[in-house]
Amino acid sequence: MTGAEDTVLAYWAACEAREWERLGTLLAEDVVYHLPQTRERITGRAAFLRFNRDYPDGWHLRVTRAVGAGSRAATWITCDYAGSSLAATSFFDLDEAGLIATVTEFWPEPYEPPPGRAHLTERY
Amino acid sequence: MTGAEDTVLAYWAACEAREWERLGTLLAEDVVYHLPQTRERITGRAAFLRFNRDYPDGWHLRVTRAVGAGSRAATWITCDYAGSSLAATSFFDLDEAGLIATVTEFWPEPYEPPPGRAHLTERY
Repeated sequence: MTGAEDTVLAYWAACEAREWERLGTLLAEDVVYHLPQTRERITGRAAFLRFNRDYPDGWHLRVTRAVGAGSRAATWITCDYAGSSLAATSFFDLDEAGLIATVTEFWPEPYEPPPGRAHLTERY
Repeated sequence: MTGAEDTVLAYWAACEAREWERLGTLLAEDVVYHLPQTRERITGRAAFLRFNRDYPDGWHLRVTRAVGAGSRAATWITCDYAGSSLAATSFFDLDEAGLIATVTEFWPEPYEPPPGRAHLTERY
């Protein structure tokens, strides 16, 4: 059994390489993928691999930060697509066999700061 | 020195309790807080505590997921404010003394799923 951090690093490497069979070996058969922002959910390894295979291509990702311990891990990836960069943050739970059982993923988008705090922050 | 996960749990407990002095004991003096979505940054313990003290109140938070190892940690919190719930995801780096040296925080907002993938997901 690999550590949780190694497992999620292998997960993102398989995604970036489009090695869907290898990705499948990291997933529990009843894996659940949650996208809380859109309230979308995908249940099961086969459906999750189909979602990834069918997703429009052209993106590249790199892991900006990863941390794992026990059966939990989290990553922050940077995804380049069509000339722009987006962050995604993901939280993983592994099952007793070390396979990924849940993934909860967020895709935060840029927005303007709310008024009234410009004196407390600097922009970059 | 406390583990990274304990440190970030203490960080959120101090925020929820509005115990800003206690929060300050967890932060490196040169802590940097990044908000990549707005490209805002706050540098230094005093400025970061002022930002927290001055921030409009009325919110409550709970930790939905936390993971830490070595000098890194990540959390997913749920923040209730004015009848709605928002998620925030945060990535932490600790310095050699176990103090929080960087926080990078995302506030992902709800959005409608892009077209063309309704056959691959269910809504909840």
